[in-house]
Amino acid sequence: MNKVYDRVALIGLGLIASSMFWAIKRAGLAGEVTGYARSQETRDTARRIGLCDRVCDSASEATEGADLVVLCVPVGAMGEVAADLAPALKPGATVSDVGSVKRAVIDAVAPHIPAGVHFIPAHPLAGTEHSGPESGFESLFDNRWCLLVPDKGADEQAIAALQKLWQGMGSNVDRMDPDHHDLVLAVTSHAPHLIAYTMVGVADDLSRVTDSEVIQYSAAGFRDFTRIAASDPTMWRDVFLANKDATLEILGRFTEELFALQRAIRRGDGAHLHDYFTRTRQIRRGIIEAGQDTDAPDFGRGQTPKD
Amino acid sequence: MNKVYDRVALIGLGLIASSMFWAIKRAGLAGEVTGYARSQETRDTARRIGLCDRVCDSASEATEGADLVVLCVPVGAMGEVAADLAPALKPGATVSDVGSVKRAVIDAVAPHIPAGVHFIPAHPLAGTEHSGPESGFESLFDNRWCLLVPDKGADEQAIAALQKLWQGMGSNVDRMDPDHHDLVLAVTSHAPHLIAYTMVGVADDLSRVTDSEVIQYSAAGFRDFTRIAASDPTMWRDVFLANKDATLEILGRFTEELFALQRAIRRGDGAHLHDYFTRTRQIRRGIIEAGQDTDAPDFGRGQTPKD
Repeated sequence: MNKVYDRVALIGLGLIASSMFWAIKRAGLAGEVTGYARSQETRDTARRIGLCDRVCDSASEATEGADLVVLCVPVGAMGEVAADLAPALKPGATVSDVGSVKRAVIDAVAPHIPAGVHFIPAHPLAGTEHSGPESGFESLFDNRWCLLVPDKGADEQAIAALQKLWQGMGSNVDRMDPDHHDLVLAVTSHAPHLIAYTMVGVADDLSRVTDSEVIQYSAAGFRDFTRIAASDPTMWRDVFLANKDATLEILGRFTEELFALQRAIRRGDGAHLHDYFTRTRQIRRGIIEAGQDTDAPDFGRGQTPKD
Repeated sequence: MNKVYDRVALIGLGLIASSMFWAIKRAGLAGEVTGYARSQETRDTARRIGLCDRVCDSASEATEGADLVVLCVPVGAMGEVAADLAPALKPGATVSDVGSVKRAVIDAVAPHIPAGVHFIPAHPLAGTEHSGPESGFESLFDNRWCLLVPDKGADEQAIAALQKLWQGMGSNVDRMDPDHHDLVLAVTSHAPHLIAYTMVGVADDLSRVTDSEVIQYSAAGFRDFTRIAASDPTMWRDVFLANKDATLEILGRFTEELFALQRAIRRGDGAHLHDYFTRTRQIRRGIIEAGQDTDAPDFGRGQTPKD
């Protein structure tokens, strides 16, 4: 038996929560998984597809008796949801979350956590451009990282249990300080998303390039951007508002670098461009070596067979 | 018999040329395919892996007797290569190319084309982040677009033959004016590549985020950027220098939009962000409907199984 918790409650039933449910079931990590979503439509869908052992009509009902309660709602909704379910928390339970920003979530959620309940923020670095209760799948977290961001005084036993759950769902687990987490993610995820959103918006605005041409001749590069820019609008709005400082700092640096490359193009400085592009190619090699992607040729249309 | 040409010469043996060879062989589109690459190492590799029916030690030798000569070298080398092989061109032959920029290639190559030889520039919208003679595969062009960019007075029979070749290699074929081509590609490919290169460079420069962290926690978004930014440095240097005006124009618009989104983040204008992200999500749907990508969830690690 791989059971880590008797009962887990998933609050919010989107891509991450639904993937967690299937991953928990795959490995038998919980006795029962309850679920709650604010919208009736989502709860109906969850019941129809068998998402969660029991779908509840309130966050409190899902929370009652749970050993682990995971907040899987957009970052901007975390505080309100925590306030709502806090009175139903069992003494000794653990509250966690899956938000892409950690400092803002901690500030919003921690004040609502009663004494005797553990709060261990977490962030699984996994996702797709799809969202909603039907988008989850059991292998989403396989070989991806989940970062735990506990406070200094946090209970080591509670941390260990949560770590075991994430490992059981297929993740590698590491710990990180909340502010450092927010900076790292601004670089690796938040700024790239905003940039992809921007480029896709520019393409859409160009009147001389008709929509159909942009779409029909969507070449390597742009296709990958549209995939990123198809991510859940509410989730990402909240991410940028909640990680404002780090995102704006990285975007400032990005703009500086982009201006330098634009100047090189304007001046015809081929050596500068070539050196820059050679350096970035190395970083890609590092990512493949770190096992976070494969070497298979792929430009936005999935695996391309080699022969 | 699907044969379109008795003899095809591929000048330059990288990703595109090697994929063309395998695609031509798959469909039996040519009697013989000759090949030439400037570097001895590439020619040795080609001979070792059976790339081309005959690998030649000069561009002239590969060109002699060919009915179609395809220039598959970086955009900046096209003029020199055309000048080199022009004296060997057979009367009635067709010269084409696969460059990502068309106006600059036409200006560089056209003056070298002798009377009685057809020049039909082309651009297959296909690629991966890999390069070199061993990176090609026969299905690279399947269901992708190849744009033909002939001059007004070009021979319709020569155009029709080249179209038949590209269709035989799996492509859809369309025609476009060179300047419009360069603008469309600046939007869909060139600007996105420069942006991806820039973001990966920024990540590399950040001293507070160690290399290993950026790589280890390379989340959705950044991983896709590193893939784009791993593309061939020489090819892309030439693309930016050759399509300077359109690329700089698009980057100017990009910067404007990015500043507007940064301002929305700074001011906490969530409605602006949400509207913008909702709009970009629609564009993604259009691309999937146009068949240029699949709906399979994928964030840079190839197809992810749904169950």
